[in-house]
Amino acid sequence: MTKDIASVTKIINCRLVRDRIIHDDVLYLQNGKIIDPLGNFFDRGEEPTRVIDAKGALVAPGLIDLQVNGGFGFDFSQCDAGGEQIYVENMKKVAKSLLKFGCTSFMPTLISSVPEVYHKILPLLYPRKGNKNDGAEILGAHVEGPFISYDKNGAHKQSNLRDAPKGFADIAKVYGISETENNQSIKLMTVAPEVEGIMDSIHDLTRAGITVSIGHSMATVEQAEKAVEKGARLITHLFNAMQQFHHRDPGIIGLLGTTRIPRPFYGIICDGIHVHPNSLRIAYDAHPRGAILVTDAVTAMGLPPGEYTLGQVRVRKIGSERVEVVENGKLAGAVASIDKCVRNFKKFTGCSIVQAIEAATLHPAQLLGIQHRKGTLNIGADADLVFLDDDLNVIECFIAGEQV
Amino acid sequence: MTKDIASVTKIINCRLVRDRIIHDDVLYLQNGKIIDPLGNFFDRGEEPTRVIDAKGALVAPGLIDLQVNGGFGFDFSQCDAGGEQIYVENMKKVAKSLLKFGCTSFMPTLISSVPEVYHKILPLLYPRKGNKNDGAEILGAHVEGPFISYDKNGAHKQSNLRDAPKGFADIAKVYGISETENNQSIKLMTVAPEVEGIMDSIHDLTRAGITVSIGHSMATVEQAEKAVEKGARLITHLFNAMQQFHHRDPGIIGLLGTTRIPRPFYGIICDGIHVHPNSLRIAYDAHPRGAILVTDAVTAMGLPPGEYTLGQVRVRKIGSERVEVVENGKLAGAVASIDKCVRNFKKFTGCSIVQAIEAATLHPAQLLGIQHRKGTLNIGADADLVFLDDDLNVIECFIAGEQV
Ligand SMILES: [Zn+2]
Ligand SMILES: [Zn+2]
Repeated sequence: MTKDIASVTKIINCRLVRDRIIHDDVLYLQNGKIIDPLGNFFDRGEEPTRVIDAKGALVAPGLIDLQVNGGFGFDFSQCDAGGEQIYVENMKKVAKSLLKFGCTSFMPTLISSVPEVYHKILPLLYPRKGNKNDGAEILGAHVEGPFISYDKNGAHKQSNLRDAPKGFADIAKVYGISETENNQSIKLMTVAPEVEGIMDSIHDLTRAGITVSIGHSMATVEQAEKAVEKGARLITHLFNAMQQFHHRDPGIIGLLGTTRIPRPFYGIICDGIHVHPNSLRIAYDAHPRGAILVTDAVTAMGLPPGEYTLGQVRVRKIGSERVEVVENGKLAGAVASIDKCVRNFKKFTGCSIVQAIEAATLHPAQLLGIQHRKGTLNIGADADLVFLDDDLNVIECFIAGEQV
Repeated sequence: MTKDIASVTKIINCRLVRDRIIHDDVLYLQNGKIIDPLGNFFDRGEEPTRVIDAKGALVAPGLIDLQVNGGFGFDFSQCDAGGEQIYVENMKKVAKSLLKFGCTSFMPTLISSVPEVYHKILPLLYPRKGNKNDGAEILGAHVEGPFISYDKNGAHKQSNLRDAPKGFADIAKVYGISETENNQSIKLMTVAPEVEGIMDSIHDLTRAGITVSIGHSMATVEQAEKAVEKGARLITHLFNAMQQFHHRDPGIIGLLGTTRIPRPFYGIICDGIHVHPNSLRIAYDAHPRGAILVTDAVTAMGLPPGEYTLGQVRVRKIGSERVEVVENGKLAGAVASIDKCVRNFKKFTGCSIVQAIEAATLHPAQLLGIQHRKGTLNIGADADLVFLDDDLNVIECFIAGEQV
């Protein structure tokens, strides 16, 4: 680690959000990382010249959102012919806009599309570091479908859905990824395990560096447990677009109650519309350390009410929080920002500030296996920070050590 | 307290099941109660002559079952003309037979019947102490229906169901209880809050000394919460015979996730058939201190497979655990004994021995407000005990201080 103290930032008067809240503490940043002052300049009695006063704010790791379909007028599933440059500019615009919600890492999410769309867009969605100019870090793509249930398609076009009788070979072909080399862009994939060829591909997918999630699915609890045994580690937007909970076949939701296998993480849309607050609390109390807040944000996030496009589907934004498919009135993604989801989550579950924030920081980082650099304030982690007031409103955001 | 040490029983080598397991402890009983030896004979250096060696068994409070429709060939909802004496004899037979399952207190439960049946049977079901000759203590009657949902009737005859447009007056008339004097027999009543006249009668019922439970109901989560605000304190056999859980209207099940009001207790049939083990664990994790195990046992409990009668409905016992309505194949009560339910509960939820036993002792006692005398091993409590091995099989049972 460099000894150049001039490059060190010291943040004072923090209430650090670690596994508990540490009052009146300080944080040191250097080269975009959180650093340990001990064994460094601190021992020499030197102090950084750049000092930022957090004024007693909660200082938490930057928020992570695993499911962003779009926002601010842009849809990650749309790319016009020859429009790659425009796409990248728009993606940057979204990534920068997310910082104001304290979101410092996210996964652009593609809904079920035709292969040509994946072939064009996925090469643009490789992971890249965030910074003040480019916005939030891109953790790679989340592909939701097309290997999902025809009966639980939600806002996905049924004509785009597929099965995979040849297993991983079919899957690779659709997305345009190699069967032999590690894929660069896809880091999370939502599949329905009951779709032909999917259950037996889960292992191959995990070997290709893809975290597998189950969702948009009619799976029974037995199928869901089998998928987890095969390597699935997440439930996509728990409760939404899955077989309804029945006490004698609780389906995917029943994974929260399994004692037979380790329980998976579960994404949850905490906008107060997709899931009743009481349902949310039941899920949370059943498996608190599995909760991951996702926005499932669509084009209309950050825009006024009106009609927009999600993939090839027309959707309508009503008021400030509801988006539905024009054709059938089904819910079509959400528009509550991730910081709003954290506030809702705390309110609906009655959990602590630390627990609410962990559901949008530590837990998604653990799911993706990146908790050494994301989702905590540990030494060596990326200096992605959000300053919050006591009501968890965003005051300030840092990305890679830069104040936004 | 009498100083006659000859009447004191000392049980040695106990593992006492209190809020934790106390190893190598002793218990003193006298006059049917658990007593404190201090300040008594103990100070004088005397020892009781009657000493029982528990040989290291778990010594727990006797099990309580709030929902026993019948068993051992007898149906509490059936009483032939002039057959009161036979009824009482049969009731005693059931009460005695229950002791072998470690069940020392129970509520005979009547399914939806015509008024004449209530008028004849209810006077026979007043609370009475248990003893070795008469069997388990009767805590009063549990009347399940007839003020329940036509759509969630389960094994109840739809033609017996009623509403109560005149509120408590209608209810009192059906059961044949007084509108002004405290009723003697009914101590627990299952109602559907959406049935006409019921919601506004809950307060009157609780004033009449009746614990109100909601079940066999299509109630929305809002209706369910309102019923709890009005004074309902239990959910009858959670998951069974209620509106299915939907994430945007979790119905009665959603009470487990409310933060707005104190959460009610919930009865649960833990036979592995009525509720999937994963569903059970979700409920338990959501609200562990609300769990109450009930058998919902019917006539066929303790009998071989075959056809039997439940109220006026023909039911069929298949194998050792399933009972269904002959006409439509719906589940019709259960036949797993309460000790078996405790064993299942521990296995399905992964809870501790203490937690499993509390769900059939402390919690039902708390619900009924009798925890000073039932459901614990506290000084002054009734000496209703069950000795269990490490797998929670019943070794021995005491009722009112008498070894069975
Ligand atoms: Zn979705
Ligand atoms: Zn019932």
